[in-house]
Amino acid sequence: MQSDLERRARGAQKLGEILGQTPDQVDRSLGDIAPQLATYVLETIYGEIYQSEALDSRTRQIVTVAALATLGNAAPQLRTHIGGALRCGATREQLVEVMMQLVPYVGVAAAINGVAACREVFAAADKK
Amino acid sequence: MQSDLERRARGAQKLGEILGQTPDQVDRSLGDIAPQLATYVLETIYGEIYQSEALDSRTRQIVTVAALATLGNAAPQLRTHIGGALRCGATREQLVEVMMQLVPYVGVAAAINGVAACREVFAAADKK
Amino acid sequence: MQSDLERRARGAQKLGEILGQTPDQVDRSLGDIAPQLATYVLETIYGEIYQSEALDSRTRQIVTVAALATLGNAAPQLRTHIGGALRCGATREQLVEVMMQLVPYVGVAAAINGVAACREVFAAADKK
Amino acid sequence: MQSDLERRARGAQKLGEILGQTPDQVDRSLGDIAPQLATYVLETIYGEIYQSEALDSRTRQIVTVAALATLGNAAPQLRTHIGGALRCGATREQLVEVMMQLVPYVGVAAAINGVAACREVFAAADKK
Amino acid sequence: MQSDLERRARGAQKLGEILGQTPDQVDRSLGDIAPQLATYVLETIYGEIYQSEALDSRTRQIVTVAALATLGNAAPQLRTHIGGALRCGATREQLVEVMMQLVPYVGVAAAINGVAACREVFAAADKK
Amino acid sequence: MQSDLERRARGAQKLGEILGQTPDQVDRSLGDIAPQLATYVLETIYGEIYQSEALDSRTRQIVTVAALATLGNAAPQLRTHIGGALRCGATREQLVEVMMQLVPYVGVAAAINGVAACREVFAAADKK
Repeated sequence: MQSDLERRARGAQKLGEILGQTPDQVDRSLGDIAPQLATYVLETIYGEIYQSEALDSRTRQIVTVAALATLGNAAPQLRTHIGGALRCGATREQLVEVMMQLVPYVGVAAAINGVAACREVFAAADKK
Repeated sequence: MQSDLERRARGAQKLGEILGQTPDQVDRSLGDIAPQLATYVLETIYGEIYQSEALDSRTRQIVTVAALATLGNAAPQLRTHIGGALRCGATREQLVEVMMQLVPYVGVAAAINGVAACREVFAAADKK
Repeated sequence: MQSDLERRARGAQKLGEILGQTPDQVDRSLGDIAPQLATYVLETIYGEIYQSEALDSRTRQIVTVAALATLGNAAPQLRTHIGGALRCGATREQLVEVMMQLVPYVGVAAAINGVAACREVFAAADKK
Repeated sequence: MQSDLERRARGAQKLGEILGQTPDQVDRSLGDIAPQLATYVLETIYGEIYQSEALDSRTRQIVTVAALATLGNAAPQLRTHIGGALRCGATREQLVEVMMQLVPYVGVAAAINGVAACREVFAAADKK
Repeated sequence: MQSDLERRARGAQKLGEILGQTPDQVDRSLGDIAPQLATYVLETIYGEIYQSEALDSRTRQIVTVAALATLGNAAPQLRTHIGGALRCGATREQLVEVMMQLVPYVGVAAAINGVAACREVFAAADKK
Repeated sequence: MQSDLERRARGAQKLGEILGQTPDQVDRSLGDIAPQLATYVLETIYGEIYQSEALDSRTRQIVTVAALATLGNAAPQLRTHIGGALRCGATREQLVEVMMQLVPYVGVAAAINGVAACREVFAAADKK
């Protein structure tokens, strides 16, 4: 048996590991008018789904990047998870190749937008 | 400099490695009315894009599976590439977890359809 | 038997009721190069489809908001119809809950973008 | 503080109310290879998201139907939730009108498929 | 000034020209539970939008086929409009090339499904 | 037998004809981090797919515009190909009518966004 407090604590730790964010950042961006969405992100996504060890973190982030680039209408989340993939050990070359692999299945527009997202995240990382 | 014959030969080899198919199978399914599409699949997708070593085959197949499950309207191709992912070393548990990781980003319908595709491919593999 | 002038008159009245806009505003935004699209919006959407009494206005706007948030590539129209839903009696809490209900079916990116659209519309309403 | 057992119990009750299904049915369709997806459906969707009282059940089901018809690639789930909407008090006329309201925003193909789903669900209900 | 009866008459004529169908066929497939959708198809789509002479019929059908193949979840309508494109003078080779042109923008799955739709429509035409 | 150098030369010529761009422009926008994507655009899209004479250039561009407007998440590419359609002999009135033809199949949001893209491209052309 596990409580929501335990899920929240585990979610907070995973969120830090994957994205380098704290629960406060999630709460600040969503908690004002949609606190239940902030709870979902922290407790369900990071506290449950990301807890499974069936996929290593690097592969999990690559799946997320592929899905968000395919959806094509989630540019900020795509950049966030490209950053997360780098944190989890994916290389820049691998992330660009993910976009290249989307070309035949999703089309060049999604790939071009995905490469543009990579370029922004890589440039921001270089400035640090 | 490389010729289209070289691309075709490399594509045929990669197609065998990843999907266990021969160029004849591609030609039979598309070559009657869309030979240029059969050429694209063999020479461009398998002869060029899949040739890059920036991603290992297992990760490349996982990206393809994630993209096709996200698109949601390519059931036969999704099953084909789930089979390809197994050939490239992905485990059944990992492929189901790919679908699970899509839940928060793409929704449960895509995940449920993806799990159903896994179930069919796994069952067909068990019969062999 | 009804004429296009009657449809236009009814459409103008409904457009005012739901969105607080006049036909002139529709004509100004579309009439320069696509007058037939302005006509479609006024006569077909507001003059015919919105005329049915099978759904009350509040529920009809909630359906529209759910569809536009699901599509995910129509941000200005989403904000317009969130405003329309408020005019038709939906509460802010209900509109945020619509986005929350999309989480399991459409994913968190659509929900986060939908909540962001709500925040903008609510803030603009507070300034009036 | 609430435990996952409490969420599961609440989810089971809500699932019965909305869809007339038992947790066993969810487990049977998903639990063989994706038990974590069955858990998500029961504990997160029905045990958390559906628990909010910000939307009445009828409106919540109408939102779900609008979202699934807009996605257009989740036919079985669309039929399930049309059935759920009827259980929650939506009328047949209202559900067809939801599809009609999607016409200008999502297009006639989604609406025609949505009407076909309604027809199947209504016919099955008449046979009982 | 034009009446809905005039739109209906013009729509019926255009529907015959483009698809070789009569209003009765539209009414039979939709009129039982969604008569307003049958009216929309006949009066708005064929009675208004298709009336514009800004595009010749062949090009208009090619646009429709491209859009439906891109959407990817409207297989019956795609087949219907491939048939309509043939009636309006498009050749089989042109229709397959439309699918080929979608490859880089929409991906091979949409193109493969589009080619499969062409094959079915061409085979049905050969049987007549 | 043809070499990649021949494909590149033919692609460069076609890219100039259709979009009035040089290979350098493609390389500058993509070549820094995704040179294989620049190669795909030049050699595969313009050097192979666009080489087929099964569709005249004007119709091919109209198909591309219809597909990109339907996808709805590729605004820069949509503007580029609206410009290409004008270069290939499509009129402004025809391009707006393409958007109008998308209304019943893809919805008004895609059409409104498509008309907005036309307006920007036409205005930029008038300034030259």
